[in-house]
Order: sequence, then structure tokens, then C-alpha cells
Amino acid sequence: MTRDELVAQIKTKKSYLCVGLDTDLEKIPKDLLRFSDPVFEFNKQIIDATSAYCVAYKPNIAFYEALGPKGWESLQKTLDYIPKNIFTIADAKRGDIGNTSSLYAKTFFRQMNFDAVTVAPYMGEDSIRPFLEFKDKWVILLAHTSNPGSADFQLLESNSGRKLYEEVILRSQRWANPDQLMYVVGATRADTLAEIRKLAPDHFFLVPGIGAQGGDLEAVSKSGMNKECGLLVNSSRAIIYASGGKDFADAAGREAKKIQLLMSQHLDNSKFNITK
Amino acid sequence: MTRDELVAQIKTKKSYLCVGLDTDLEKIPKDLLRFSDPVFEFNKQIIDATSAYCVAYKPNIAFYEALGPKGWESLQKTLDYIPKNIFTIADAKRGDIGNTSSLYAKTFFRQMNFDAVTVAPYMGEDSIRPFLEFKDKWVILLAHTSNPGSADFQLLESNSGRKLYEEVILRSQRWANPDQLMYVVGATRADTLAEIRKLAPDHFFLVPGIGAQGGDLEAVSKSGMNKECGLLVNSSRAIIYASGGKDFADAAGREAKKIQLLMSQHLDNSKFNITK
Repeated sequence: MTRDELVAQIKTKKSYLCVGLDTDLEKIPKDLLRFSDPVFEFNKQIIDATSAYCVAYKPNIAFYEALGPKGWESLQKTLDYIPKNIFTIADAKRGDIGNTSSLYAKTFFRQMNFDAVTVAPYMGEDSIRPFLEFKDKWVILLAHTSNPGSADFQLLESNSGRKLYEEVILRSQRWANPDQLMYVVGATRADTLAEIRKLAPDHFFLVPGIGAQGGDLEAVSKSGMNKECGLLVNSSRAIIYASGGKDFADAAGREAKKIQLLMSQHLDNSKFNITK
Repeated sequence: MTRDELVAQIKTKKSYLCVGLDTDLEKIPKDLLRFSDPVFEFNKQIIDATSAYCVAYKPNIAFYEALGPKGWESLQKTLDYIPKNIFTIADAKRGDIGNTSSLYAKTFFRQMNFDAVTVAPYMGEDSIRPFLEFKDKWVILLAHTSNPGSADFQLLESNSGRKLYEEVILRSQRWANPDQLMYVVGATRADTLAEIRKLAPDHFFLVPGIGAQGGDLEAVSKSGMNKECGLLVNSSRAIIYASGGKDFADAAGREAKKIQLLMSQHLDNSKFNITK
């Protein structure tokens, strides 16, 4: 998907919601276990209930990988089921060198047909470059994550006076433009989001941490939005596990709609509105 | 596998060779394609030919993942086939937060029964901690890799005067002891290996980069070995693709034996010998 197409979807749906498909056999309603592929059945119903309110889905690959070969089948079926006008993110946090990176890129982009993959920056440019060779496909690079351990290395200040995550954001802009590169920026530190926006004015940010991980949609929207919106705000558990009962899909739909309504207001009040 | 068991294997076999199972359908002999699972058949023959000369196998997960669900089956069969006294490393370079990390740990340690997983340090302590909860299982943390892009961030100097990879090595030692933590240290920079050994005198290093990626076994051994050997030196393509013909397994065995003989000499000439 191109950036223009993504921005058009955001305008149409008045939403920048990404729904995280962290589908866990132990958390889905027991009632679904009678299906031959309960994970896909759950995802299918979640997608049906939420696709009007979101512009992206983000399966967390760990949850599928944990189920062995069958999990990969559930993942592929899920991906094939997602409407083509919705952006898809493989939350895989891969990062390896040249030929291995190329294989990961082929797997997620060509075979599975994801639009984007999350990638860890530790190994540098040659771990990212192979992903960029796929036209209209995206790298979403870990920059400033929302977990406590992010302080261990991401906040280390180099002798240039910049923190590691700032170096990651600045340096990686030499490798890819905002048509193929986004950054993961955690919502639990909305105060730093405005600073990060200055470093990367045109790039989209994938912001996890709304919902179960905390975080404040209004603060994130005010400090992170740019003239093309520039945000994909993810919510996983707060939506997909909004109810643990038979009404799980309806509850997920209601929760997604609630967030979309708030997002609609934030879009109306933003610079994004000016360019409409 | 415990550290004592690993060291005992190194003593018995006089080898610290790790064979990388980067098995690629396009590179294995065409003759094998008649088997229902050519990847497993290739690995099986490679394992039969090399297991006397190595103490570890390291499948690169990207190669199996690229084959879809069938690839995961080939990987599991390979793992089940590896003799139990040989250390097994999932070269997956995973790294995510708490519950996702736990899932990756369960997948590789409990379901697949790997001894170790390679992990990227960018997300900090809580991305590593869940792996350490599995007794006698190992995290192999990326420290100083051998690719050109390693210079982008790993060599950044913080205002403490330490490079990022040094920070990774020092800080992570607070989280795990040498019985569960190793480091990936690239062989293409053997000159820095001695410095890294000072930072982590007791930890094992997984050293890729011997063979197809260059690197010098003698220099690595001299500068990196400690009194328990402390090295696993990996070679992938130079062994498994030593011949592209029907004699691929014999050729792999010969290549592994050649490296093992050199390793035997390096062990005899080292501190390791003193403690025998």
C-alpha cells in the first residue's frame, strides 16, 4: 500500500486506529474451540466487527508462531481475509543481516502479502535495506518503545548529545523516505512524542500502548499528528478482549467505534483537517 | 543443557564448532528434491556427517520460516534428529516485551526444545528476562555483530565513554549469569574480541563469520578463549555447501573435521588445557 492510499483511508474512515491481533487460544471464548481453526474464527469475527473503524491490523507474530505450523496457517488465512484497503503490519521485530533479512522480507511481503514489518535497528543499515527493495512495502523501525526496559539502551546518550533512539531516527532517514519507513514510538511517553515529531516531521509513527498498556489518545494525537495524520495508534487487548463471552465481536466493534469517534474529533481539530 | 555439560562436550570432542543450518532449497543438491521433505533430508545427512566434529547446531530460523508451515515442520524434525548431547541454537534474533517474549521463549524452549535463542537487546531488560525463566536454557544476546551496519549503532559511544555494544555487555550481566547468557560477537573484528573478553571474562561467545563471511579462527581463538573455552565458533555455508553435488554430506563432514582439527590444536595451546 502506498502512503497516499493509507492517508486516503484515514480520511475516508476518519480513523487512524490499528487493531492488534494478539490472538491467544487461552483468552478467546471457549465456545470457539469447536471450530477447526479457532484462531482464524476469532480473527474473522473481530475483523468483521472492527474493519469499519480501523485502517490497519497488526498481528503479533509471536502468538501465531507459538502454535507451530498450524499457527502460520491461521495467520495466512487471517491475512487473506483482511479487506485489501486495510494496511497490514507483521509485528515480528525482525532484524538480521543481508541474505537473512531478504528471506524475512520475502516471507512477509511476497508470500504472506503484508504491507509492513516491524524491524529492530540494532544491526544497522544492512539489516533494513533488504526490506526496502519491495515496492510499496514498509519497514516500521523500533525507535522509542513503551516498555520499562526501553530505558536500558534507547535512552543512552551518545557523545553527540543525542539519545540512541534519536540516532536511530536521524540515521535511518538517510536510508529510506517516509513512503517506506515508519517508526514505533511508544504512547506511554507522549511528552517526548512532540520532540520525536520534530526529528521526523513527515514519517508515520506506529504508536502502541493505548489501552491495556496505558497511554493517552488525546495527548498522543496532539503531540504526534502531522498534516497527513502521520499516526497509526494501536490497541490490541482493550479491543479484542473487550468481552470474554459470546458477544466478544460486538464488544470489540463497540470499543473500536468508541476509539474511532475520538479519533474523528482529533482529526477535525488538527492540521490534517486543513489539507482536506 | 547446562554450562558444565557444554564444556564437557567441548573437552570430549576437542571442538567448539557450531554448524549453521542455513538450509536453502535453492542451494541444496537437486537430487534431494525427490524426497517429501528435502530440507529435513539435507539436514539429516549433514548432521550424520558432522555431528562427530561439532558441539552445536544453529538453524537460522529465517530459512525455515520462508517455507511457510512446512518449513516449521522441517525445523522441528531437524531438531528432534540432532543428538541430545549437542547444543542447539535457534538463530531467531527475537526481541519483544514481556508477554510476547514469553511466547517466543515457550515456542523455542518448550515446544521445539532448543537450548538457546539469539535475542536482540534494543528493547532492554524486559525483552530478555522471560527467556531466563526457563532452567538450563540460554539467551544469546547480540552484542557486536560482524556486518557492516553494526557500525551504525553498536559502535556509537555514549557519554560514559563506552560504545553501545559495551553497554549491552556490561548491563546485561546484571540480568543473567554465564550459565544462561552468551553474547554474539562477530569474528570479523578479532582485534576487539580481546577487549570484549575483558568485559565478560566468563561468558560464552557465539562467533559467526568464520568461513563464507571471512574471519580468522586462530585470531579468534587466541583472543577470545577463556579457561572453559568460552567460544562457540559458527560456520554455515562453508560447511553445508562445501559441495553442491551428491557428495555434499561427505564434503561437509571433511570440512567440519578440518576445522575441528584446528580447534583441537587451539584448545591444546590454550588456558583451557590447564584445567583439564
